[in-house]
Amino acid sequence: MQSAMKLTILGSSSALPTSGRYPSAHVLNAHERLFLIDCGEGTQMQMRKTRLRFTKINHIFISHLHGDHVFGLYGLLSTFSLMGRTNPIHLYAPENYDKMLRSHLSDFDIKLSFDIDFVPLSGKDPVKILDDKYLTVTSFPLQHRIPSYGFLFREKRSDKNIIGEYIDKYKIPQVRIPAIKKGEDFITADGSLIKNEDLTIPPREPLSYSYCSDTKYFKRLASFVKGVSLLYHEATFDGSKEDLAQITGHSTTYDAARTAHDAGAGALIIGHFSARYKDISPLVDEARTIFPKTYPAIDGRTYEVGNTNDP
Amino acid sequence: MQSAMKLTILGSSSALPTSGRYPSAHVLNAHERLFLIDCGEGTQMQMRKTRLRFTKINHIFISHLHGDHVFGLYGLLSTFSLMGRTNPIHLYAPENYDKMLRSHLSDFDIKLSFDIDFVPLSGKDPVKILDDKYLTVTSFPLQHRIPSYGFLFREKRSDKNIIGEYIDKYKIPQVRIPAIKKGEDFITADGSLIKNEDLTIPPREPLSYSYCSDTKYFKRLASFVKGVSLLYHEATFDGSKEDLAQITGHSTTYDAARTAHDAGAGALIIGHFSARYKDISPLVDEARTIFPKTYPAIDGRTYEVGNTNDP
Repeated sequence: MQSAMKLTILGSSSALPTSGRYPSAHVLNAHERLFLIDCGEGTQMQMRKTRLRFTKINHIFISHLHGDHVFGLYGLLSTFSLMGRTNPIHLYAPENYDKMLRSHLSDFDIKLSFDIDFVPLSGKDPVKILDDKYLTVTSFPLQHRIPSYGFLFREKRSDKNIIGEYIDKYKIPQVRIPAIKKGEDFITADGSLIKNEDLTIPPREPLSYSYCSDTKYFKRLASFVKGVSLLYHEATFDGSKEDLAQITGHSTTYDAARTAHDAGAGALIIGHFSARYKDISPLVDEARTIFPKTYPAIDGRTYEVGNTNDP
Repeated sequence: MQSAMKLTILGSSSALPTSGRYPSAHVLNAHERLFLIDCGEGTQMQMRKTRLRFTKINHIFISHLHGDHVFGLYGLLSTFSLMGRTNPIHLYAPENYDKMLRSHLSDFDIKLSFDIDFVPLSGKDPVKILDDKYLTVTSFPLQHRIPSYGFLFREKRSDKNIIGEYIDKYKIPQVRIPAIKKGEDFITADGSLIKNEDLTIPPREPLSYSYCSDTKYFKRLASFVKGVSLLYHEATFDGSKEDLAQITGHSTTYDAARTAHDAGAGALIIGHFSARYKDISPLVDEARTIFPKTYPAIDGRTYEVGNTNDP
C-alpha cells in the first residue's frame, strides 16, 4: 500500500546552490493533495523534473524571507497564471511578505489569473494555520537571524474499521455504521450489548511531518514537534562548526539529531547543506551517533512518511 | 584554434519553462570575458552545470522587464555576494529597473558586497553602451508589449600581423613595429620604401553576435544587425501562428529567418520556444526555407560565433 503521506525534496542546498543541490523546496503529498513548503529558485523546474502536478498545489508555506527560500515563487506564480489557474492559492508567510509580493508582482506588471489568500505567520507559540478534512497544519517560531517559522503537518485520526463479518452476524443496519466507526457500542435486536472494541479494529496511527529550517538549536523546539513521524531539520554545518552555526543562526548535524532524539521522532532527514560539503555522508554519520534513523535530503528523491527504515 | 567568441545558451524556453528548457539566458564568451545576456530563473544553476565561472562575469544585459528574462538575477547577485565578490557589476537594463532592483534587494535585506553600476537603456535608435579594448556593445529598440532592447556585440578589428622574416630582412627596429601593425609603411636604412601591404597580413574579419528577444517582426531590425556573424532571434511560434505572434508581440520562425536574410547574417539561432512545441525540429525546418543556416537554441550547448556550418 502507498503511504498516505510522501515527501519530495526539490532542493537540499543552503544559500549557495551547487550543480546537484537546488535551494530549499519541499512538496508534501498528503492524500494526493500537494503542499509546497518553501520555494527556492528553480522550484518550478524541479517540479517538472519530478512530475509533480502544478494543479494539485493549493497551499504554499514560506518559512522566512531569505531569497534561497522564496526566489522561485515569482516564476511559479507566473506559471500558474499562464496555465490559466483560477483556484486561489493559500499563502502562509511572515506577515510583511504580503505587501512585498504584491509590490513586486505589480513592478513586473504581473496580473495573476487567481487570488492569493494570504495567511500571516507570527507569534511566539504554535498556531494552527490550517484545519481540513484530512490534516491540521501548525506553525511555530524558529530561531534565525530574521523571523523564521517551522511547520507541522499532522494527519487526523481516521475512523475505526468495522469488522465486516459482524455486520451480518449481528444484523447491524447501515444507518448505525458511521456511529460505530466513531466508537459507539451496538445493541442487537435481542438486547445484547456488543462492545465497540469487539466490533472494530483501531485505525492506524496518524502520520505527521515537520519542516524546521532555518534555525539554530533551542531546547523548546523538540516540544513543538513531539512524536512526529518524520522530522526534516536543517543541518547546514558539520559538528565542528558550532560557533559558525551560532553566528549565522543555523544548526549542526548534532543540533538536528538532538532535537529529533528529544522529540522522539520516527525518522530524521537533514538538509540545507553548506556548499562546502561535496560529500554529505559524513554529516549523516555524525547525526547518527545521536539519532540512528537519520537520512540525507537528496534533490528529486521522494520519502515515505512513517517508514523509519530508509524512508 | 578556438573561436574568439563563443555563445553558451542556458535557457531556450519562453515564459513557461519545460523540463528540458529553462527561461532565457545567454553567456557570450569574448576573449575569455563572459557577458551575461538576460537572466531567467535558474541561470546560476545552469552556469554551474555548464561550468561557466562566476568571477568572469562583469557585465549583465537585461533586454526587458518580463520575469522569464529577469527572475534569476536576485539569486545570482546574492550568490556573487556570498562568494565575496568585490568587483562592480555593470548592469544594462531598461531605465526603471534600477529602482525596482534596489527596492527588492532591500526588502530581502540583501546587502551586496559589490557595487552595481547601472546603465539605463532607452531611445529609438541604436546606442553604444560599452566600448573597451576588444569590443563594442550597442543596444537598439525592439518591438514588444513593453520596452525591450536587443544587443549587438562587435569585436574590434585587430592590428595587422607583421610577416616575421621581414623584420630581419629589412632590419626593422622593435620601436617601429606597433606603427607598422597599424598600417604605416617602412623606409629602410638605404632609403627604400616598403609598402605596408607587402610587410603585413591583414587581420581576420571581426566577429559579431546579436541578441534579439522579445520582439515582433519589423523591417528596420535587419538594419540594426546588418552583417552580423551570428544572430540569435526569438521564434516563439511556428509560421502558422502569425496572428498570435502579433497579439503577443513575438515572432514566428519566418519572421526570424526574414530578418536574418535581410541582414545578411552569417548564421541564425532561433529560440524562446513556446512550451507547446515538444519537438523543435519542424521550427528549424520552417526557418531554413527562408534562411538555410538556421540552428536551434539548445540548453547547455555552446556555439562558435563565426562558424556558419553547424556552429
